Amino acid sequence: MTDPRGYLAEHRAAHLDELFQLLRIPSISAVAEHRTDVRAAAQAFADLLRRSGLEQVALHETAGHPVVYGEHLHSPGHPTVLIYGHYDVQPPEPLDLWHSPPFEPEVRDGKIYARGATDDKGQITMHVLVAGAMIQEGVLPVNLKFLIEGEEEVGSLHLGDFVASHKDLLAADYVVISDSTMLRPKVPALCVGLRGLAGLELRLRTGQHDLHSGNFGGAVPNAAHALVELLATLHDREGRVAVEGFYDDVLDLTPAEKRGFASLPLTDREFLDQAGAYSLYGEAGRTTLERVWTRPTLELNGVWSGFTGEGRKTVIPCEASAKITCRLVPNQDPQKVLQAITRHLRHHCPDVAQLEIMGPDGVPAFLAPPGHPALRAAEQALREAYGHEPDVIRMGGSIPVVTDFQEILGLPTLLMGFGLPDENLHAPDEHFSLENFSLGMLALWRFWQLAA
Amino acid sequence: MTDPRGYLAEHRAAHLDELFQLLRIPSISAVAEHRTDVRAAAQAFADLLRRSGLEQVALHETAGHPVVYGEHLHSPGHPTVLIYGHYDVQPPEPLDLWHSPPFEPEVRDGKIYARGATDDKGQITMHVLVAGAMIQEGVLPVNLKFLIEGEEEVGSLHLGDFVASHKDLLAADYVVISDSTMLRPKVPALCVGLRGLAGLELRLRTGQHDLHSGNFGGAVPNAAHALVELLATLHDREGRVAVEGFYDDVLDLTPAEKRGFASLPLTDREFLDQAGAYSLYGEAGRTTLERVWTRPTLELNGVWSGFTGEGRKTVIPCEASAKITCRLVPNQDPQKVLQAITRHLRHHCPDVAQLEIMGPDGVPAFLAPPGHPALRAAEQALREAYGHEPDVIRMGGSIPVVTDFQEILGLPTLLMGFGLPDENLHAPDEHFSLENFSLGMLALWRFWQLAA
Repeated sequence: MTDPRGYLAEHRAAHLDELFQLLRIPSISAVAEHRTDVRAAAQAFADLLRRSGLEQVALHETAGHPVVYGEHLHSPGHPTVLIYGHYDVQPPEPLDLWHSPPFEPEVRDGKIYARGATDDKGQITMHVLVAGAMIQEGVLPVNLKFLIEGEEEVGSLHLGDFVASHKDLLAADYVVISDSTMLRPKVPALCVGLRGLAGLELRLRTGQHDLHSGNFGGAVPNAAHALVELLATLHDREGRVAVEGFYDDVLDLTPAEKRGFASLPLTDREFLDQAGAYSLYGEAGRTTLERVWTRPTLELNGVWSGFTGEGRKTVIPCEASAKITCRLVPNQDPQKVLQAITRHLRHHCPDVAQLEIMGPDGVPAFLAPPGHPALRAAEQALREAYGHEPDVIRMGGSIPVVTDFQEILGLPTLLMGFGLPDENLHAPDEHFSLENFSLGMLALWRFWQLAA
Repeated sequence: MTDPRGYLAEHRAAHLDELFQLLRIPSISAVAEHRTDVRAAAQAFADLLRRSGLEQVALHETAGHPVVYGEHLHSPGHPTVLIYGHYDVQPPEPLDLWHSPPFEPEVRDGKIYARGATDDKGQITMHVLVAGAMIQEGVLPVNLKFLIEGEEEVGSLHLGDFVASHKDLLAADYVVISDSTMLRPKVPALCVGLRGLAGLELRLRTGQHDLHSGNFGGAVPNAAHALVELLATLHDREGRVAVEGFYDDVLDLTPAEKRGFASLPLTDREFLDQAGAYSLYGEAGRTTLERVWTRPTLELNGVWSGFTGEGRKTVIPCEASAKITCRLVPNQDPQKVLQAITRHLRHHCPDVAQLEIMGPDGVPAFLAPPGHPALRAAEQALREAYGHEPDVIRMGGSIPVVTDFQEILGLPTLLMGFGLPDENLHAPDEHFSLENFSLGMLALWRFWQLAA
């Protein structure tokens, strides 16, 4: 039997060389002039999949950038795993803050510096390389399908359509994604929960046009007043959401979950430093991680009314708007939450204003099925590779593709990220730890053995 | 003794011709390409003053557009009156909504249509023509000084400086301005009060940068929440300003004032139509005119925070801002009001936010000295010319030059406007009533006789 550690050490230079070739392609999906580069990256990933022994490798066209697919289905009776990643990257600007050019990868201090190093070329390439190695050595005991898209950084605009129209092609037992971070160096992490999202926009109107405050002030309503009065009702003084029914379906944490979160090393001081906020703030009686991972929120993302330019304009605004999104937790139904918010807004809207609610929509939270064999296999693989018990974490954000896999394919997702929180994804000097590149591949190799 | 009615009727065509020449000049002070036109209008007014027999006529340069000055000081022992007006106009756009070109004056249905017809070329020209007629006929019994500026429509940017540096030149007993409107057709009006203005801008910050609501939502403060919570404290549920001390110095209306306002014909229905608001709203127990003319207000002119573009951005804003202005009434000190608001904001600012207050400043309200002989003369002159008791009104807005005359020259101002509320000033199809052009000149002639 091949020794994974030895094999990976022996091929390390070749593996890094493969990754560097991919990192050199400026596949910036948000910028139209990089269309050709984005396609070149798709082609390069397809070539790598082919060289690695994957089959049915193809670029599938979408209304946007193509999806790269490849499979290896030679383990009948064993699980089939869909591996998702993306080959597109964020724009590198501002360029002058990079210490080496963003598309000329280089290693400094044990880190690979390049746009896309950690998000996500580095992490998805680990998967391809491990699959290739195990195919080469004839020891891959599971069936793998690769789905590598080119629009993650612009909102995965066309992935949902692609998934919906390729259900058979993508059929699997579960999904694995490596596009997230560990909580701290040297300690692997397994993410078992994501919050959902629900949002809407509202507009208040108090008249047909803005009015001169000299001619009318004192005798007509002001839409900005109505807005702040209405929005101020959404929270109580302790930071809890004051919408009736908002917390109805929120599950209490189990003692085990509470203990698990409490065992994690993130201090409030560290969290505050990461946030750059002047203070922490939130529901009483909950730890910071509980608040961010397991409690629903209602945030004003934007409010605007009247004159917002420089100087003074003595106007009485007739219109005022706000954008609201909620982070949802497992067991909350986005539609039910949106209805509760809508009821609250209609009930508390000042009489002088007409309320319009626009574009309510949402996606539910995600919780990995407790006790799923792949979870246990992943925990053990990570423990063996890193020599440390993995952090079992959640994330406060949503990942739309996880929702798509859940809703369209009916598949749970395992989130096994190898990034670190300070690796500057979406910022200058993005980098990826060489150590995690190596230990991560070792963990993946072991994972497929245990997951078989 | 010359009969004013006969004289004015005889010279009507010539007078209209003078006005039309002035209306043909597109003296749009806001638009740099019209700089030459603005100067041409100043020159044309200076020429008209000279032809009318005024003396010391000159263009006085300022840092912006020139001020036109002219005087006739041949009635020793009689009052000296400073007449203020402006020769600049608003931009005419949108041009396609005009039924005749804005700078080609024409008479239709007894109305002069042109940009500047009512605001203010028409009204200030009446003064020049009446002065000219009375000088010509040797019957001008008062001393007159004309001050006609070219920046009124852009905020009278340099007039304060000019007035401050020409106190001797502008020394007078009082000021007369005809740049406002009557309340209704056929009934002359005399405005005896203006509200003042006080304003500031505030900014709340809860951290160093905006945060991702997935990663941080639930555990950090949101500046937009803090803003709506703070701003919602500024009014009570009945529309009164909830700032402690805000109403302290506000004078009760005298029974005579209350009766006077109640006698005016403006109905709430008409006011609502003018406003285009969905409803009226304001302090309980006050009529609409009392609210607009005699009660102070606190208005949010603008609020903004976070993401206000199209679509969704799950951001937690770290900054939120608002612009506030107050309309003040006689006896209120702008500084004292601003201090009360500042105290209120600091007291109610949520702990999680840092509050910054910027640019507080203000001007007091204006109330014509009750019983001033010029007031009585004006009332009688208007009564005789129109055959109707004048409406004694106030205005809810401020006129900065009135404050300048009050504060720099120590002079009260008489506001005798001949416009009508529906004459589209600042809008397409601006016009001025021929009837008021004639009756107004008659009233002015009679006014100088009575004011002597």
